[in-house]
Amino acid sequence: MVVAGVGDDGAVLRPPADRELVTVIDTMVAGTHFPEDMDARDVGYRIVAVNLSDIAAMGAEPRWMTLALTLVDADADWLDEFSDGLYEAADEWGVVLVGGDTTKGEQLVATVQMGGELAPGTALYRHGAREGDTIYVTGTLGDAAAGLSRRSDGASGNYLARRFARPTARVRTGRALAGLAHAAIDVSDGLVADLSKILEASGVGAEVDVQRLPLSEELLQAVGRDRALRYAMGGGDDYELCFTLPEARLPPEIAPEVTAIGRITAEIGLACRDGDSVVPFDDTGYRHF
Amino acid sequence: MVVAGVGDDGAVLRPPADRELVTVIDTMVAGTHFPEDMDARDVGYRIVAVNLSDIAAMGAEPRWMTLALTLVDADADWLDEFSDGLYEAADEWGVVLVGGDTTKGEQLVATVQMGGELAPGTALYRHGAREGDTIYVTGTLGDAAAGLSRRSDGASGNYLARRFARPTARVRTGRALAGLAHAAIDVSDGLVADLSKILEASGVGAEVDVQRLPLSEELLQAVGRDRALRYAMGGGDDYELCFTLPEARLPPEIAPEVTAIGRITAEIGLACRDGDSVVPFDDTGYRHF
Repeated sequence: MVVAGVGDDGAVLRPPADRELVTVIDTMVAGTHFPEDMDARDVGYRIVAVNLSDIAAMGAEPRWMTLALTLVDADADWLDEFSDGLYEAADEWGVVLVGGDTTKGEQLVATVQMGGELAPGTALYRHGAREGDTIYVTGTLGDAAAGLSRRSDGASGNYLARRFARPTARVRTGRALAGLAHAAIDVSDGLVADLSKILEASGVGAEVDVQRLPLSEELLQAVGRDRALRYAMGGGDDYELCFTLPEARLPPEIAPEVTAIGRITAEIGLACRDGDSVVPFDDTGYRHF
Repeated sequence: MVVAGVGDDGAVLRPPADRELVTVIDTMVAGTHFPEDMDARDVGYRIVAVNLSDIAAMGAEPRWMTLALTLVDADADWLDEFSDGLYEAADEWGVVLVGGDTTKGEQLVATVQMGGELAPGTALYRHGAREGDTIYVTGTLGDAAAGLSRRSDGASGNYLARRFARPTARVRTGRALAGLAHAAIDVSDGLVADLSKILEASGVGAEVDVQRLPLSEELLQAVGRDRALRYAMGGGDDYELCFTLPEARLPPEIAPEVTAIGRITAEIGLACRDGDSVVPFDDTGYRHF
């Protein structure tokens, strides 16, 4: 598939016949998207992982990527470690780095653009959710935001910090949902914000039961239930998938790794319940607890 | 070809059958690659033009692009003007913006990744130059570097400044050369530096006659012949194409817009002559004048 990679003015690829190409692009700025002192390996891993996550949210198979890296100085050690992390994440899914551009600036800025592929007509979008769909999420929510806040230490703190630094791209789950899920998004801005994008694009509403939100033991132990729910609803950076489809169409092989958290309604807007009580919130986060 | 563009986690494209995909990526950092006070329209135009130039150097047809834009603040007027320039350059070649990511940072950083296509096996590389090839360049050299230095004003100064701010991507020339030229590169780092990349990749040498270098009247008028030649050899940012092929194979339709400046030799290294005298230089520029 890669005819010519790194080393010329551009890369040449031969797309397989009868497949569609998915392209995504995501930037991380030091100090804005991650702490400036974050380990270089984690910076490299994470910029690939967040793009893998976008590819996953489209239901595609990741294939190749290009890198635009703006560096403050050419620190060879830092760059070696960054590359280690970058290739570690790319190699997990067989993604080939085919080109790039390295520049000098006042601040570290890393952009990865990634290409993936899928069968024609099977891409997952935000706009297909329908009344009666069940809403699912992968993994657990809130870990990354708690990890970024560094409010706990010990084993739980380490687990949460790693959840921020090394998000798990749900590529396999996305592949299983291609052509099946009615709508999908990856949770980068927080569940409320990202689910709201599905609702708006689809012209529907949703009811979410916060008692069903998947929370890790580590998060509960570190911050308690109330704060854990706040992180799960409003915190970003989880890079879990949120998707909707009729319950009966959920592929059995992914059932163990996803959690049903609510359902799509005809009434516009997002309503959250905690048992019998209504939970107020706004798009910027979760206010009840 | 574009199944789904801006507005989801990724874009979906349907590549045409029996074509190869070319992908390029190029970043511009304010203060590093262009003056911080450069007109926003020019910033937008230029980040597209430099990527079009890479596509041209590969011999491909530009098709689509994604944008990663890091902004210091969300100045709506600036962004409108930037977009005007971006679309102006993209529309010239029918390139569609299919996705992007806008982030906040301490410094303006613009990255465009562009996709193009060509017939299988016709891509232009740096590594195919052969002894006896004639070396050609498009347009004129040195204008952009002189324009950036802002050493002259009046009509010539305006012309040169525009040559920096709005480089002409040689897409049509690149297309005409696809499958024909033995080697090609776009002149972004300067003729000596970029031609040297062809020589190194191809394992050959070259003789260049500096009396044949194409110089604009405006450049000669603004800085005189000696400095003009220095800009032409060592200055960057021209985004002209430099390519090699046997003289007899030059497509007649591009002959009027290119200049033969020398030939490829078996002896490794780049030799420059000015009439009968040898011109010393190094990879960082041109030292004789």
